[in-house]
Amino acid sequence: MNFETILGSVDFLEFLRGKRATFLLSTSVTKTCEIPNISQAGIPGLLSLTPTLDAEFLCTKEVRSLQDIAKTPKGVPTPALITRAIHELNPFSNIEILDLGMQVIPKINYFKVHNFDIKISENITNGANINAFEIFQKGLEFGQNYQTNDDYVIIAESIPAGTTTANATVKALGYECEGYFSSSFKNSPNDIKNETINKALENLDKNDDIFQILSKVSDNMIIFSAGFILGSRANDIKIILAGGTQMASVLLVINSILRSMEGEIDSSNIALCTTKWINKDKNSNIKALLEQLDFSINAYASDFDFAESLHPALKLYDEGEAKEGVGCGGALCYGTINGLSKEEITKKIESFLGV
Amino acid sequence: MNFETILGSVDFLEFLRGKRATFLLSTSVTKTCEIPNISQAGIPGLLSLTPTLDAEFLCTKEVRSLQDIAKTPKGVPTPALITRAIHELNPFSNIEILDLGMQVIPKINYFKVHNFDIKISENITNGANINAFEIFQKGLEFGQNYQTNDDYVIIAESIPAGTTTANATVKALGYECEGYFSSSFKNSPNDIKNETINKALENLDKNDDIFQILSKVSDNMIIFSAGFILGSRANDIKIILAGGTQMASVLLVINSILRSMEGEIDSSNIALCTTKWINKDKNSNIKALLEQLDFSINAYASDFDFAESLHPALKLYDEGEAKEGVGCGGALCYGTINGLSKEEITKKIESFLGV
Repeated sequence: MNFETILGSVDFLEFLRGKRATFLLSTSVTKTCEIPNISQAGIPGLLSLTPTLDAEFLCTKEVRSLQDIAKTPKGVPTPALITRAIHELNPFSNIEILDLGMQVIPKINYFKVHNFDIKISENITNGANINAFEIFQKGLEFGQNYQTNDDYVIIAESIPAGTTTANATVKALGYECEGYFSSSFKNSPNDIKNETINKALENLDKNDDIFQILSKVSDNMIIFSAGFILGSRANDIKIILAGGTQMASVLLVINSILRSMEGEIDSSNIALCTTKWINKDKNSNIKALLEQLDFSINAYASDFDFAESLHPALKLYDEGEAKEGVGCGGALCYGTINGLSKEEITKKIESFLGV
Repeated sequence: MNFETILGSVDFLEFLRGKRATFLLSTSVTKTCEIPNISQAGIPGLLSLTPTLDAEFLCTKEVRSLQDIAKTPKGVPTPALITRAIHELNPFSNIEILDLGMQVIPKINYFKVHNFDIKISENITNGANINAFEIFQKGLEFGQNYQTNDDYVIIAESIPAGTTTANATVKALGYECEGYFSSSFKNSPNDIKNETINKALENLDKNDDIFQILSKVSDNMIIFSAGFILGSRANDIKIILAGGTQMASVLLVINSILRSMEGEIDSSNIALCTTKWINKDKNSNIKALLEQLDFSINAYASDFDFAESLHPALKLYDEGEAKEGVGCGGALCYGTINGLSKEEITKKIESFLGV
């Protein structure tokens, strides 16, 4: 197993080889996920439970707020399986949950669930109705004060319909993004997504500043994470943004905020890590998104795939039905720099499915 | 490899996944071990050397105070082999020895051997002659002042004939224990053990308070450990009691002390971890012992066995000849939450036996 460098050099990830990591999972709900067929990240009609279930499964291997683990209609199992497999084979030192607006709080003990008093955001077609500046400030303060005994922090997300809000955010901020966004659908339901994004953008006023824009079209995860990353520069923590186009959107939001205040960022200790399924996706282009940043960024993709599995549900990943989420790309890169093999990861994931 | 939850929920052990542990080995001798055929935890006639040899082997992979590693008459190798194997595959950050009365001090350098000025206790048939309150106080103070750089502490024991003194202790304190205690013998020499326990209990006076009872029928390990656990609540260190019915007895002693002083304990950061051989033992019942506690407790058992070994000496574990000791159950649970597999542990243990 190895990783591919999308942008930058191998050095950052190589430096982290063998080092200890804390895994932060941002869990959030946008009511955008209630639009029929907008996402397949979870159980139809119960998508708003997905972040809760992902957090429970990652921490305890149990799904407590529902009987069965979240599956998509075609039966693509949640990428939480991948992240959990890595955690069993070469554990993160620490997992913490960031509650950025959830319907149901995960039923887990001992694990820290940070409460920021953040509400579920609204459907972006009607305006997300987020106090973006407040959420950003909360992220900023959390980042400034965040302390860890570990060598680096991996930050991941679980937010159904998050690629739609990410796409709307980046488009609203004026970046080129036509065809650059992935979806958790293979045959991306572009009509519904584009319709949603276009409707959302109709709510914008040409005089809106950046936080007004974010308040209308974005989601709590993106806004909070942008604050967190900027705040964490105060103590220069090494951070891996574990995700695909959504984490690229966090970086583009940071970019826009810096432009608006003529600020700068030392981005040398930040990297994005994603999956092969995102990196090789023909229906999106994460590299093109990242190349629009004014600052340099290291970005990597795991080369893990399910070539060694015969399980039909897992094969759907290789067929493009699912590509990212719950930080599985970052977890796979972490697995690589800690000596795990494709074979043992595959076997572990299969064991969860009762193979 | 996995673990089973005997009592409580998976959360405590899952939270410790990937975290760093100190391993404390309590080593002690009760002259009860001199009763012929009372225990097979060591070399006949030399049982009082077992804790010394276990400590040496665990720390250095060498047996220095004797030429050969402690074996039982039928050739069951000490469970120190299992704990040592885990330590080689995914090392504890730190090992310390608690000298609770030994015949020979282990010949090891650098490793901390805590000296509490505690003497070997007597054969319980004549009265153990322990200053129980003093030993308890020593444990309490050690627990109150104990500091670690690690995330949690695993506390284990090596004390030959310790299940007999544990059984006597729990029976003397009035708990139900008929058929609940394991022995390191498959065909538990119940006549000798029961005879010993009954003789020990004859020394009790109906007006004896709890410490007077412990002074007559218990052992240094149980009394000190009860103090240590209670004392360590002052700084809320996370602790795993690594052992079977003996560690359950430590908890029952704590329970009786709390009852006698109408005290309470926050037991949320304590757990017991044992082996499959104890958990599935038909001649004992650790769950029934733990269910008599007034406080809640998390208890887990590793699912490790020697199914993957062909070595006749190791197969004896699966046949019930040996079940616990030197914290091997806790070590196996530690191995599980640090990604070790049954196969690699088996191979490592076999390598010690020259396979």
